[in-house]
Parts: sequence; structure tokens; C-alpha cells
Amino acid sequence: MSLPYDPADLWHLTLDDLEALEIGSGILGTGGGGNPYIGKLRARQLMAEGHAMTILPLDKIDPDALCLSLGGIGAPVVGIERIKEGQEGLRCLRALEAHLEMTVDAIVCEEIGGSNAMEPLNVAALAKLPVLDGDGMGRAFPEMQMTTFSIYGHTSTPSAMSDTHGNVILFHHAETELAHERMARACVVALGGGAVLASAPMRAEFVRRTAIPGTYTQAIALGRAVRDAQRAHDDPIDAICRKENGRRMFSGKITDLKRHLRGGFVVGEAMLSGIDKDHGVQGSVVIQNENLVFRREGEVEVCVPDLILVLDVDTGEAITTEMLRYGQRVAIVALPCHPLLRSPQALEVVGPKAFGFPEITYRPLAEEEEAA
Amino acid sequence: MSLPYDPADLWHLTLDDLEALEIGSGILGTGGGGNPYIGKLRARQLMAEGHAMTILPLDKIDPDALCLSLGGIGAPVVGIERIKEGQEGLRCLRALEAHLEMTVDAIVCEEIGGSNAMEPLNVAALAKLPVLDGDGMGRAFPEMQMTTFSIYGHTSTPSAMSDTHGNVILFHHAETELAHERMARACVVALGGGAVLASAPMRAEFVRRTAIPGTYTQAIALGRAVRDAQRAHDDPIDAICRKENGRRMFSGKITDLKRHLRGGFVVGEAMLSGIDKDHGVQGSVVIQNENLVFRREGEVEVCVPDLILVLDVDTGEAITTEMLRYGQRVAIVALPCHPLLRSPQALEVVGPKAFGFPEITYRPLAEEEEAA
Repeated sequence: MSLPYDPADLWHLTLDDLEALEIGSGILGTGGGGNPYIGKLRARQLMAEGHAMTILPLDKIDPDALCLSLGGIGAPVVGIERIKEGQEGLRCLRALEAHLEMTVDAIVCEEIGGSNAMEPLNVAALAKLPVLDGDGMGRAFPEMQMTTFSIYGHTSTPSAMSDTHGNVILFHHAETELAHERMARACVVALGGGAVLASAPMRAEFVRRTAIPGTYTQAIALGRAVRDAQRAHDDPIDAICRKENGRRMFSGKITDLKRHLRGGFVVGEAMLSGIDKDHGVQGSVVIQNENLVFRREGEVEVCVPDLILVLDVDTGEAITTEMLRYGQRVAIVALPCHPLLRSPQALEVVGPKAFGFPEITYRPLAEEEEAA
Repeated sequence: MSLPYDPADLWHLTLDDLEALEIGSGILGTGGGGNPYIGKLRARQLMAEGHAMTILPLDKIDPDALCLSLGGIGAPVVGIERIKEGQEGLRCLRALEAHLEMTVDAIVCEEIGGSNAMEPLNVAALAKLPVLDGDGMGRAFPEMQMTTFSIYGHTSTPSAMSDTHGNVILFHHAETELAHERMARACVVALGGGAVLASAPMRAEFVRRTAIPGTYTQAIALGRAVRDAQRAHDDPIDAICRKENGRRMFSGKITDLKRHLRGGFVVGEAMLSGIDKDHGVQGSVVIQNENLVFRREGEVEVCVPDLILVLDVDTGEAITTEMLRYGQRVAIVALPCHPLLRSPQALEVVGPKAFGFPEITYRPLAEEEEAA
């Protein structure tokens, strides 16, 4: 059986690419997506064992090829305390293949943010498959129905979930994408707060139309830009803003932090006191696994689906929500989200109202840029 | 393809059998298993629509026949507030048959108590299959790993769960029977507190060895005995004790009732004030879906796995835990459990310690009878 792509089109990742991806996916994770350091360690180990990690451009795969999107599910705080066993995603892949009597041709990243950029690479490496260059979020979001795949019509069941102990659950049919999320979330809580979930396979033609394109390339290049700035003693925050059309919103010190586990999510709020008076005196970031809303002097300045980055002010690297600590000096940077995330259809699912902020009206950063 | 049993061996239930089963399964339900009245209404409707409901003796089926055990899962209080749509169990059956590429020959009752005596009949009627005369508990218990099937070695995954809205989940592999229970319980809570679950198919040979035998016959005969006593103005409580080798422990009025939903279960305690001084002044029953422990004057008198019945003192019919009310006049009757439930292996799973009462030592009612 011939491959649904030309092996010459595969980009073989190097160890250095992984290091850059750790930084870049951490930044695009907007605080979540799982701790990228832990994910990278697993990827490095697989690479050291001789597994190839390959990326394939979205337009280089046969439109009929079968693609499986997957990622970690659960609270990032759990991800750093309970280390994965390593076969979770492969078990999901094999369980779905057996259930559907289909063979998967390529792996798709559910969310490029955090360790969820690494998880598809790790599963694909074990299964000797490529990972497509794109993902379902272009960032990280806390819930499963928040992928562009679901938003633009993919039914994500039957899906498979597996945990460190080898438990496997198939979500055979869900009434709605939200019902799927609720069932899966209840299960992941019962499994201790962390698992891997693979959604129903999609045809490559659909993935091409609905994925946020080129996000592996983007994340690796972003990571390199940060590292280059660090080495050149340039300001890495400026490098990020230049590269991603971002805006520096605030510089401050974390003066208070509320963070707890609720319903399988890390939720809370970080309060910031300004250290650079040009950008304000008082700020705050509301979190649910990811950074959802940034306020300055009590006023909403940026909200989902635009990206709110909480970065170490010196290194420019992301501080994920589970790593936030009192006293950290951070820069808040806002990046405009991809247009696929701000259609009326998408805002129903990933706009501020979907996150329980009915009082917030989303004003796209991108349009403000254009107006300015 | 020939049937794995002789149709001449089938017992075709009548409407009158269903009425008796409602009373008998309610009593054997020890407070739980789902409201038998609601279950009976569904069974009556199916019978009125022309569906046959048949019972097959355990020794009249081919040992190689494939049997599927199923029942409702969730909190009984939810069962009386959210009426089933009716196809839940059939969806589970079909999903498992498709997943395993097997055809089920007969249905097995997971627990004979309450509406869970009716659920297998309803599914079997729709699927045109018989129900075997026996079950996995000989009573009702709140958790799935508490069946004799699980206790004596059956792996209950892959299993299928479905709810009123058509959601279907396959529990493909669980590390342990308890892990299966935890995942399924989390899902049923996410689905609103009520669903039907079908466990992995078993060979009839295994069911014969491990089921509590003849419990449909027993429940229907028990229901008839109660009704006969009611009609003859005899004491139905005495009739139950004679028929089931039971012991009247207490007669009292419910003077206080704590009951709430926790983790998908109805939990609480009913306090009783004696109305028949021969049997004591003060009593109490601890519940978790079912009646778990009966105390008289603060001392444990009966506990799981022996059966604690809370009966209407006048009619002898069961008062299920969700129907308990302040002021009800009840008789507490204890029945010895089947020997399959009091092996050391079984007590690990259904003895008082398994229910969180490490301080209670189980003294089998049956042995006390023998000693007396």
C-alpha cells in the first residue's frame, strides 16, 4: 500500500527543533496546554531511542488520508505531578483503529500550546506516522469542543481516552460536542485528573480547510526567535511582539494568586502590580487552565479568543498557569488570534460568553490594529 | 442458526407476574435498585405493545451461549424524576455487539432488586431474547463491582453505557473492576445521574456457576405471597419472614431522615422510634442507595451483605430509599444473603468494610440461625 504523501516532503525534527518547540509552544499555550518541559523530556527520550519525529505540510497529504487528532486532557497541575507512562496516546490510536476497522495515516495536533504540541509527536513517533503542520486551536483552550475541527462541523466521537494505568474508554456517541466534553471531563477526573484523548478520525481534506495552518513551523520559529534574543541580550519580549504581531500590555509583579482545582480544571486569578508605569499600575489575569481575560485598572483589555501571554519579563519564556508564583516578574503580551477563531460561529464556542463572562464584549485585537 | 435453548423451556411472563415482580423485586432491593413501580410501568407498556417477556432457567441454556448482563446505574432519586426514553439498554446491547462482532443469545439481570429486575426484561423484549432466571446480586447493591460475576472473576469490560439522550460510552478496558465502577460512576453523574450499563458478555457456563440462581422465580413468588397475605388480611410481614427465612427486627416510625445525593449516590440515615416495644425503642438504618446497616439501641444488628428490608408495616411492601418520609410506620426485616455473597472473596467487596465501616464485623444471619 503506497503512502498518502511523499516521504521527501517530511520535515525531520532535530533535538534543537524540540528545544525551540518547547519555548514556542509554551508561549502559544497562553498559560496552558500542559507543561511543555515535561512534554519535551518525553519527546527527547523517544528521539534518543531512535524514533523519528516528522512534520508534514498540510497541503502535502492526500485529501482522502485519515488523520487522527489527539492531545492530553486534564489539569496542567496534575501533568507535572503525575508523570505519563508513555503509551497512553498509542493505546487511544490502536483502540480507535480496531473499533472503526480503519488505519490512520497521520496524526493531527489538537492544540499547539504547551505539552500538547509534544504529545502528537510522541504518539506519531511510536506509530511511525507523520504529524501534520497545523492544529485545532493555534493556541491552547481548556475544553475539547473548542477546536476549529469541532467548531467547523467535525463530530469528535467516537473518541478514545486512556490513562497511565491502561484504562481505555471509547466515547461511542455524544449528543453534542459539549456532551462529549462533559463525559470526557468527568472520566478524566475519575482517572485522577490526567489522560490522553484521541478524537474521531478526519479526512485530510477537512483538516486542511479547518486547521490553524503551519503552527508547528510557527511555534519552532518563535522559540528560536526568543532564544536568539536571549543569546544576543536583546529584549525577548520585543522579539515575540515583532514576530507575532503582538502588543506589550503590562509589566508587573504577581502580588496575589488564587488557584485551585475545580471540576478537573485549574481555575483562579493572578493579581499584578505594575513595575513599568507606562503600562499601568494594577493588572489581573483570570485563568481556567489558560489565561482568559486580562484587565488593567479593572478594565478588560484583552480576552479570549485572542492570546494572552504571561511571560517571564527577563527570558520571554511562558509561565504556565500551574507555575505562577507570588513575586514573579512578568510581562503580559497580547497576540491576535487566527481569523478561524473569531468568526461568529467560533465566538459562540471560544468567545468570552462561552467562558462565563456574559458582560464582556469581544473586541478583536486584529481590528484594533487595523483601525490604529 | 439454531437457538441455544429449547423454546419450550421459556416461561412467558403475564401481566400478573409483572405485578408480583414489582412487589417482590422491591422487597429484595433492600431499598434500592431503582423504583420498581416506574420499571413496571415501562414493562407493562412493552407487554401491551405485544412484546414477549420470557424467563429461561439457568440450566436450560447451552453453556456456550453468550449472555449480556445489564441494569440501570445511577441514583434512585434521579430514576423517579427523569423518566427513561426506553431504548437505553438496547443501544448498549447493539453497541457492544457491534464493537465485539458477537451476537448475544440471552440477557442476564445485574441485580434483581427494584426496577433493575424490570430493565433486563424490557431490553430482552425489544431484542427478542430471553432473560435467565438468576442475577448477579440476589438483592441490590450500589456499585457495579459488587456483582457475583465480578467477584468470581468476570472482567466486566468492555461495557457500554447509554442515557436518555442517546449518548453511548464504551468502557473498553479498566485496570480493575473498581476502576470501571469509578469511571462509569463519573460518567453517569456527568449524564445527569441516570443511565443503563451493559457489562461484557459472559458464557452461560460462567453465569450458571456464579449467578444467584432462580431469583426471578423467587421475586415473583415473594410478591404473590405478600399479595395473598394482603388479600387474606394476614400479616404480610409474617408471610415474608416465613417465605424467605427472615427475621422481624424492629417496628417503628421514622422520626428523622437525612438523605442527600453524593457522588451519584443517595446517602443518608433514617432514625426510627419503636412502636412495638418487643423489638426495641430506638433504631436506625444507614443508606447508600440501599439499606446498609441496621442498628438497635445503637448496636449493629444486621449489616451488608445480609438483606435489610424497610417495609410498610401494614402492606409489607418495600419502601425504597428515595421514598422514605418522616412519619412512615415501617417494619425492619432481615434476610440471610445467599452463600455466594458471604465467601471471604465476596466479603472483600460487599462486606461492611467495603462500604466504609471498618469497625463492623459481619456476623452472618444464617449462622446465627443455625446456632440458635
